[in-house]
Amino acid sequence: MFKNEYGSKLLADAVESLASLPGIGRRSALRLALHLLGEPAPNVEKFASSIVDFRNKIHFCPKCNMISDDGSCVFCDDERRDSGTVCVVESYADVLSIENTGQYRGLYHVLGGILSPIDGIGPGDLTIKELSERVAAGGINEVVLALSTSMEGETTSFYIARQLAPYGVKLTAIARGVGFGDDLEYTDSMTLGRSIVNRQPFKS
Amino acid sequence: MFKNEYGSKLLADAVESLASLPGIGRRSALRLALHLLGEPAPNVEKFASSIVDFRNKIHFCPKCNMISDDGSCVFCDDERRDSGTVCVVESYADVLSIENTGQYRGLYHVLGGILSPIDGIGPGDLTIKELSERVAAGGINEVVLALSTSMEGETTSFYIARQLAPYGVKLTAIARGVGFGDDLEYTDSMTLGRSIVNRQPFKS
Repeated sequence: MFKNEYGSKLLADAVESLASLPGIGRRSALRLALHLLGEPAPNVEKFASSIVDFRNKIHFCPKCNMISDDGSCVFCDDERRDSGTVCVVESYADVLSIENTGQYRGLYHVLGGILSPIDGIGPGDLTIKELSERVAAGGINEVVLALSTSMEGETTSFYIARQLAPYGVKLTAIARGVGFGDDLEYTDSMTLGRSIVNRQPFKS
Repeated sequence: MFKNEYGSKLLADAVESLASLPGIGRRSALRLALHLLGEPAPNVEKFASSIVDFRNKIHFCPKCNMISDDGSCVFCDDERRDSGTVCVVESYADVLSIENTGQYRGLYHVLGGILSPIDGIGPGDLTIKELSERVAAGGINEVVLALSTSMEGETTSFYIARQLAPYGVKLTAIARGVGFGDDLEYTDSMTLGRSIVNRQPFKS
């Protein structure tokens, strides 16, 4: 009797859209759709337009690939940042995380992903060539690799290191170790092992 | 230096919209927004329009308040359903859950919420008056109350029972008890207690 499992094509389409988001299953999507049904129409239209506007109106910095509202880059165009240091990250979210620490004053380079043969992502899909060109253009003393420690992240770091080798730029990677507040007992042995090998002078 | 914590008003607006959904925090909202940024523009437009269409084009059955694509009701307009039985539920999602069981062939009445003084939801905000009118119009033999067992749900059930009392209609409530596959050990004592009081003849 039901045309579909939701009894409504409009509802089924809305559920399908919401369930296409990562981490949202069909049950949650149904709950979200019915929640939006209870909201005033202008709110729902604003909800939808803010997402479409973000997707369609956002700019990308031609230098570092960071998102930008108007084409100017909050990092590259800021003279107070240290333009001699470039931190290589996978995504925009990583930039926000690093900025939140307040510990970094250099520029960024957003790869837009990491090398993943299984997902068909090769060097041409990332901004690695653009990074090489930035370094080749001069003025950069240090490139900080801040990619994940997954197999794909390590592969990407090694690939970038090889691409940048001809330019003799200083290459560093963010420190790995036992997190602040973490129990040694529950730290994986890879992390704990590295944190012992890379032990630092104790500052008291 | 950041105009806001996301460095972009477009991103901040999208995150705010997504974070307005129940159960989605700001971190998840950021992840969802950046996921949508990686999707083709037509997909994101379809995502947004399916939600706005659902909100703006959906109809409600004037009789039972169930959602409908075109004004006709998959329940009320279906002659194969038992129009003498009406099951009272809080929301559309509850209708879908009951339909999924395949055990119910009657009609529904969607209240659109439950009485909740703390949230300012009174009888006038629900379709209780419409339910009384349906019952007063005749042809209904049984009203099945399928509301939650929360304080608000029980209050709503009692309120409805009082409203329907003058019509002498048969009032029932869905059975409460220990769920199939549930361990007695982990069943709350209220549920277990009721399931003992309401014990049924054993069918072998």
